[in-house]
Amino acid sequence: MKNRWLSSCLLSSNGHSVLIDCGEGTQIALKCAEQKVKPIDTICITHFHADHISGLPGLLLTMSNEGRTEPITIAGPVGVGNVVRSLCVIAPQLPYRVDFIEYEKGLCFKSADIIIKAFPLRHSIPCIGYSFELKRSGKFDTEKAKLNNVPLPAWSRLQKMEEVEYNGRVYTPNMVLGAERKGIKVTYATDTRPTSAIYENALDSDLFICEGMFGDNDLLSHAKEKRHMLFSEAASLAVSAKAKKLWLTHYSPSLKEPEEYIQNALDIFPFTECGFDGKTIDLQFPEV
Amino acid sequence: MKNRWLSSCLLSSNGHSVLIDCGEGTQIALKCAEQKVKPIDTICITHFHADHISGLPGLLLTMSNEGRTEPITIAGPVGVGNVVRSLCVIAPQLPYRVDFIEYEKGLCFKSADIIIKAFPLRHSIPCIGYSFELKRSGKFDTEKAKLNNVPLPAWSRLQKMEEVEYNGRVYTPNMVLGAERKGIKVTYATDTRPTSAIYENALDSDLFICEGMFGDNDLLSHAKEKRHMLFSEAASLAVSAKAKKLWLTHYSPSLKEPEEYIQNALDIFPFTECGFDGKTIDLQFPEV
Repeated sequence: MKNRWLSSCLLSSNGHSVLIDCGEGTQIALKCAEQKVKPIDTICITHFHADHISGLPGLLLTMSNEGRTEPITIAGPVGVGNVVRSLCVIAPQLPYRVDFIEYEKGLCFKSADIIIKAFPLRHSIPCIGYSFELKRSGKFDTEKAKLNNVPLPAWSRLQKMEEVEYNGRVYTPNMVLGAERKGIKVTYATDTRPTSAIYENALDSDLFICEGMFGDNDLLSHAKEKRHMLFSEAASLAVSAKAKKLWLTHYSPSLKEPEEYIQNALDIFPFTECGFDGKTIDLQFPEV
Repeated sequence: MKNRWLSSCLLSSNGHSVLIDCGEGTQIALKCAEQKVKPIDTICITHFHADHISGLPGLLLTMSNEGRTEPITIAGPVGVGNVVRSLCVIAPQLPYRVDFIEYEKGLCFKSADIIIKAFPLRHSIPCIGYSFELKRSGKFDTEKAKLNNVPLPAWSRLQKMEEVEYNGRVYTPNMVLGAERKGIKVTYATDTRPTSAIYENALDSDLFICEGMFGDNDLLSHAKEKRHMLFSEAASLAVSAKAKKLWLTHYSPSLKEPEEYIQNALDIFPFTECGFDGKTIDLQFPEV
């Protein structure tokens, strides 16, 4: 639309980024939000409807123009390699390798330090949701290190989760660290009807980004027909998932002012916000 | 770019439109310029670089969502059918027919009342320019009609360029009309180095839209290397073509303020203007 980009999300951690979906204009939306494409190592495609993937060849070419030589990974439903190769008829010679990951049950992979899990959604064509986790190791436990006879010169690297060989013996991080602490989790689900797989995979998310195609509760049958969701349905999923925060996205073009319907979600889940172009949050490990 | 769409042009006449090129976001640029996609019957693609064609599947889908059932024609370099079909992996079932016209020497075809001629450009890949003409018939000549014994009831339809059969005899428009009058001509050339084919095909254009990738005359060798043009080169072509008006387009992303270099073109061709998003002109038949 003239005043709204297609739904897309960029997750960044420690200089690496993951992009979710890339419809027409997403690379401009990234520029408008002052985000760089260079750190994007992984692109997660939810499904092959044009509003989620048509901007991909342009983005890949922009990366090429910016001098990228590092490989990139593109994950998506079964067939993602064929679809992207077909779209790239206008980007035939990229100066970097593109690796593809096709969805399969229980798919889990890493992009830098972000652990990505995929789960099935229920839309008019095969579609997948993603959860993203940043793990956080336990605190350094001096007593435990001493009990395990870990030599002092190994402590620092063990704390950084490296294995250390010292004087012929191998030391592992678990010999100096306490129990794993809560990390950060973000879950992204669009386009879909509500399913139990969504709230199960979104469990304990710090941020749950979910489609809300329609705000008006009277449009339920329309939402069902189109395989989309109401704001209130997204809010119910957020409650079931015990999410900390819900962002709504992927509004119908007929929904000019999403804020007008936010109360339908707030009545069910009070930590709901409407997504908008360039909306950003900085998620930190909790103070523990 | 954040504040500039990719080069594209919409020509409209009598409720029918022709679109030239469709890069990423062109359908949004059309909306911003308050132009409709419904009247577009023909899309002329100059070449297969992404900035000229990547928005095509999205546009075709938007046409589909708007209920189009009439066929559409897509013209372009040799292979245009294969390229568009490949891009349309994400638009597999359009509810209207797509006909393709591949470039060949001397290609000339009609879209409603617009006569379209294609000519070769000189770029890094096969690329074609287009001229568009609206013909204008001669004035109605009463003396001529009488001399040719054309019956009065046939006059009106003959003036509308129809053939008329009346009392067993066929009457043709040339029996009542004077010599053909000057029509309207628009020529579009991007991406290319200057060539004689360009000014020959742009001859007597009311509007000549030409690429001006670089404004600074010192960038000539760079322009040559990239197979693009300077503002001053476009202006020289406009002089050779005896064009009435020149619009520059397809600026390099490095050229933030094209107006800063317009003098380089004005020195050569005083009727030069910088193109910008949404720039519009209403061309009328001359008062003759």
